[in-house]
Amino acid sequence: MSLTIELHITTTTHLNLNPQTAISKRSYSIQFQSKSIYHSNPLTPLVLSHRKMCALPSSSSKVSFTVKSSLIDPDGGSLVDLVVPESERAAKISEAEAMPKVKLTKIDLEWAHVISEGWASPLKGFMREDEYLQSLHFNSLRMKDGSLVNLSLPIVLSVDDEAKERIGESIDVALIAPNGDLVAILRRTEIYKHNKEERIARTWGTTAPGLPYVEEVITPAGNWLIGGDLEVLKPIKYNDGLDHYRLSPHQLRREFDRRQADAVFAFQLRNPVHNGHALLMNDTRRRLLESGYKNPILLLHPLGGFTKADDVPLDVRMEQHSKVTFAGPRRWNS
Amino acid sequence: MSLTIELHITTTTHLNLNPQTAISKRSYSIQFQSKSIYHSNPLTPLVLSHRKMCALPSSSSKVSFTVKSSLIDPDGGSLVDLVVPESERAAKISEAEAMPKVKLTKIDLEWAHVISEGWASPLKGFMREDEYLQSLHFNSLRMKDGSLVNLSLPIVLSVDDEAKERIGESIDVALIAPNGDLVAILRRTEIYKHNKEERIARTWGTTAPGLPYVEEVITPAGNWLIGGDLEVLKPIKYNDGLDHYRLSPHQLRREFDRRQADAVFAFQLRNPVHNGHALLMNDTRRRLLESGYKNPILLLHPLGGFTKADDVPLDVRMEQHSKVTFAGPRRWNS
Repeated sequence: MSLTIELHITTTTHLNLNPQTAISKRSYSIQFQSKSIYHSNPLTPLVLSHRKMCALPSSSSKVSFTVKSSLIDPDGGSLVDLVVPESERAAKISEAEAMPKVKLTKIDLEWAHVISEGWASPLKGFMREDEYLQSLHFNSLRMKDGSLVNLSLPIVLSVDDEAKERIGESIDVALIAPNGDLVAILRRTEIYKHNKEERIARTWGTTAPGLPYVEEVITPAGNWLIGGDLEVLKPIKYNDGLDHYRLSPHQLRREFDRRQADAVFAFQLRNPVHNGHALLMNDTRRRLLESGYKNPILLLHPLGGFTKADDVPLDVRMEQHSKVTFAGPRRWNS
Repeated sequence: MSLTIELHITTTTHLNLNPQTAISKRSYSIQFQSKSIYHSNPLTPLVLSHRKMCALPSSSSKVSFTVKSSLIDPDGGSLVDLVVPESERAAKISEAEAMPKVKLTKIDLEWAHVISEGWASPLKGFMREDEYLQSLHFNSLRMKDGSLVNLSLPIVLSVDDEAKERIGESIDVALIAPNGDLVAILRRTEIYKHNKEERIARTWGTTAPGLPYVEEVITPAGNWLIGGDLEVLKPIKYNDGLDHYRLSPHQLRREFDRRQADAVFAFQLRNPVHNGHALLMNDTRRRLLESGYKNPILLLHPLGGFTKADDVPLDVRMEQHSKVTFAGPRRWNS
């Protein structure tokens, strides 16, 4: 599950993605079928369709094209950005200081980060009950225009009985990071029952013991959920030496434009990069070039938040990603 | 849960639905709020929108209207009817006799009835895996045109290991009623894993013991599900003296047309009719008349299949429904 999103854009000049030179196929013991194992083009969901922005014809009737790789629209039509503008920050902070406080766990804070930067667009805050129930029952949210957006995991904030009591009739609450910092405001809140068993059963299709997120996050959580509109007082940072990798969707889109990407293919992973990953990435790039794309860009997208206890730690993985992408993949086989 | 659907259309001439004369309000001990308890018009989901069919203008430019109460389209656009035409029956029967046989339980047979008459339109048979997974995860089926149809319960047929073995590579199978009758063919079948725990968790949001349908139907069922296109060799009947109440959706639509209904309001129930039901039915009719409908028709729709063990038996309920609707509701309060 992606909670904190760590991002690293590889550069095609550094990462040699030509499978003929980069990877010795002899090092694989598995035989690959020459026939496609896919019923349909497996790239379709990965490739963001390219779109050429056509400038208005000039008076000389010449038409100029600009490759614009901000690409597909975000779910719901526009990218959510819930970080308070600098100019309003001081006023919001003093407003928040007078509100009832809700203490966030480390994982709550990561979800606030996810929501605030628009990773969960069109979600504008922790889910209210109508959104929560749609997510549980339909794995989707219905937009005002009737269209559906996939949201198969409830993104919710729990509070315990004591916090619910303390909030009382207050409409807005302030959210406090584990270190005590005031980080956000949740507006027009709604408090509703946290039916943990139903949440678990409908999300995982089982209530068997041993699910890490259930045991570490849901079971110890409060009996209530609080939904509302989120305003983050400043961008959420972790101060772990890795924040420069954590680009927001907005920053990524700008970067894709700057590089004039006509396709972006994303590779999300929880482990160090290994040869199997490299094969997939190289093969995807090859297919995109064969399909006529001129400048496909790889988005390497390691998960930084809640991973398994025995996973390689994030800082080690980022170091490895950084090394292999800058050194080129040949070294992986040596 | 509605498995076998029993139908009884009340006649407005027999059932006096005028609340002023039919029901003595003094007999109620509960005080009703004068303010609506609904956030929106509670009738909206019940009322099938009326549609006037406009004949082509005649040469004299007069436009004639016909009230047509087949009303809204069935889910998926057209009413499914999977009963084999009489002319093809003999050939299909001899074809079916050569196929591997799957023995149905009483409840399987009721589902075959539901599917064959189009109650589960657009479903054309027991669910294949893609339909089953959509139902479990999205409570809906996606049509070819991208539209969604609500189907929140998987309608599936289970087979055990022995039956799966016996079916082997056969594409089509014959379905046998509990009494040994050959009742249907399932074509272009697909056999897939019956993950009972996931089915239960995603359908009910709990895996707690004590759910009657789980304990009586799912737990003892086979480890495999078989989906395919259904062909019912003749209309499914129960020979319990109640078959004349069991109108198909097609027959109902014809009846609504014959009565020139401009609205149909349905009342589905598992119990004998009581005063609370009568109040709801009368109130609905009153609101429809106030909304401008001229001839709203009540569809009284008792559930006949899987009900709770301590429910009033179906034949007793049908007798009661028949008595109260023909005698008029005044007698209920006496």
